[in-house]
Amino acid sequence: MTESRPLAIGINLSFCVKRWVTPELWAPVVRERLGLDLVQFSYDLADPLWPAAVLERQAAAIRNVSADHGITVHSAFIGLAHYTFNQLLHPDPDVRDFAHVWLERAYAFAAAAGITRVGGPLGAIASRVDGAEPEALDEREYDGLVTRMLSLAERAKAEGLTELYVEPTPMRREWPWTIPQARRMMQDVAGAAVPWRLCPDWGHGTFQPLYGAGADSMEPWFAGLADVIGAVHIQQTDFQYDRHWDFTVPGAVDPAAAAAELRRNGLGDVPVFLEVFYPFERDDRSILEAVATTAQILKGAMA
Amino acid sequence: MTESRPLAIGINLSFCVKRWVTPELWAPVVRERLGLDLVQFSYDLADPLWPAAVLERQAAAIRNVSADHGITVHSAFIGLAHYTFNQLLHPDPDVRDFAHVWLERAYAFAAAAGITRVGGPLGAIASRVDGAEPEALDEREYDGLVTRMLSLAERAKAEGLTELYVEPTPMRREWPWTIPQARRMMQDVAGAAVPWRLCPDWGHGTFQPLYGAGADSMEPWFAGLADVIGAVHIQQTDFQYDRHWDFTVPGAVDPAAAAAELRRNGLGDVPVFLEVFYPFERDDRSILEAVATTAQILKGAMA
Repeated sequence: MTESRPLAIGINLSFCVKRWVTPELWAPVVRERLGLDLVQFSYDLADPLWPAAVLERQAAAIRNVSADHGITVHSAFIGLAHYTFNQLLHPDPDVRDFAHVWLERAYAFAAAAGITRVGGPLGAIASRVDGAEPEALDEREYDGLVTRMLSLAERAKAEGLTELYVEPTPMRREWPWTIPQARRMMQDVAGAAVPWRLCPDWGHGTFQPLYGAGADSMEPWFAGLADVIGAVHIQQTDFQYDRHWDFTVPGAVDPAAAAAELRRNGLGDVPVFLEVFYPFERDDRSILEAVATTAQILKGAMA
Repeated sequence: MTESRPLAIGINLSFCVKRWVTPELWAPVVRERLGLDLVQFSYDLADPLWPAAVLERQAAAIRNVSADHGITVHSAFIGLAHYTFNQLLHPDPDVRDFAHVWLERAYAFAAAAGITRVGGPLGAIASRVDGAEPEALDEREYDGLVTRMLSLAERAKAEGLTELYVEPTPMRREWPWTIPQARRMMQDVAGAAVPWRLCPDWGHGTFQPLYGAGADSMEPWFAGLADVIGAVHIQQTDFQYDRHWDFTVPGAVDPAAAAAELRRNGLGDVPVFLEVFYPFERDDRSILEAVATTAQILKGAMA
C-alpha cells in the first residue's frame, strides 16, 4: 500500500547558494549533516552560460561526488539568478530566444551531470506603467509559449532527459498561476517528446493575497492536478508571502498534515523537496543548524 | 555652502526587476510617477551575457528614452541575479575568470548606454562544511582580487568609463566588510586607471548580528571613509537583516537624520540611491504606490 510507505523527502540546493557551491561542499552537508540522500540541483550553483570546459568539469564532479556520497540527484531546477529575468515571456522576442537557448544549455548540463529531469518557472510578462495586471496571458503569447515547450521537449529528449517540469508561481504575470491554467497547459503539451509535469510549491498555492483567504492548504492543487504532478516543493510559510522559510520558523504549514494531504491525493510516490532561502548576510552556522533541524522534522512527519 | 543645497536623491532600478524591465516602461514610472530624474541602472534588467545585438538595442534605448524623459543614468550596478554567484571569489579559478569577463561586458554595455560609472559587490568565498567563517580573506586571495581590480580599471578606462564602485556587504565571506578593510582596499587600488570608490549601503553598515548592537547608524562608515565614497545606497531596515524595505515600512532609519549624517560627514554632494526589493509575487500597483510615497518622503528629508 502506497499509504504506508515513507514519502521521499529531498532537498533543493537553494540553501547552498553562494555558500556550499561545489559538490565537494554540498554533498557532505546533505548526506552527513542533514542525513538526506535525495537532491534537487539548483542552477544557482552552476550557470549554463559558463564556458563549456567549466561546465564539463562541474558536471563530472556532480556525477562523481554525489555517487561517492550515496546521493541521488533527482532533477535540476531554475534558481534565483535565472528567475530574476522574464525568461520566455520577456517583452523583447530576442531575449525570449536567448532564454530558450539558456534552457537548452541547462538540459545539456543536466545530462552531462547524470541528471535526467529539469524544471522551473517559464517566464513573466512585463508590468504595465499604470500597475494594472492582466487576469490571463494573451492567447498569442500563450500559444507561443506552448510551441516553445514542445520544441524544448524535443531538445530534452535529444539530450537524454526523461521529464520536464513547470513550476506554477503566484503571479498574474507568470503562467500558469491557476489550477485551470495548469490543467490546460498540461493538456496542450500532452504530446511532447518527453513528458511535461507540474512541480507545485507549498508557498505558491497558498499565497492568499492572490488566491483569497480560502487558500489555506494545497488540497485544491493536489486534488485537481495529481495525475500531472511529478514533484512537489515544500516550505514553511504564513500564506501571506512566498516565504521559503525552514521549519524552525513558526508558520501555517503543519508537516504531518502536509504528508497526509499528499497521501490522500495519491501523491505518496512523488518526491517532495524542501526549498528554503536565507538572506545572503545570515551566518553559515545558524543555517546549517536550521536546515538540519528541518530535515529531521520533515523526515519524522513523512515517515 | 554644501550644507544648504538639496542632496541628490535617485533610485536604483531594483524595484523594476521582472516588472518595468525596458526603458519604455521604467522611464515614465521614474519621471512621472516617482518625480525623480536620477537613476542607477540594474544589471537585473539587462544581462551583459545577452547576445551583442540585443545589448546594442537595449543600450540605445536606455540612452534615448532616458534623455527623452529628462533622466540622468548616473551608474549601472550589479543586481540580484549576478550577486547570486560568488563572482570574483568563486572557488573555481575559471569561474572567477568568467566573472571577470562578465564585468568587462558590463562595462561595454554601460558605455554603449551612455552610463559612465559601474559598481557592485566583488565576490564571496565559498562556505566551509562545518559552517565556520573566516574573519578575513586569505592574503593570497586578497592580492588576486586587487590585481583584478587594477586590470578591470584599465578595461573600464578603455571603454570610456570614469569611475568604478565597490559595494561593501555585511558578510565575512565577502570583501571588504569592515571599515579598515575598505580603507586598505581603497589604498591598494589608489593607482587604478579609473578611480575605484565605495558605495556603502544603509542596511549593510548597520547589520547588527555582524557588527554588534552599537551599529545603529552609518556614522562610522561615513566619518571613516568619506573621502573615498562616491555614492550611497539608502533603504529602510531594522538593523537585524539587510531588509531593503521602502520608507512606508516602519524601521530604524530616519530620513531626516540620514540626511544630516551625510551632510555632517561632507557627503552632501554624493548621490544617494534608494535601493528597494519586493517579493516577486507582490502586486504591481501596491509597489508603485509604496515607491512613490517613499520618493516623496526622501525628497522632503533631503531637500
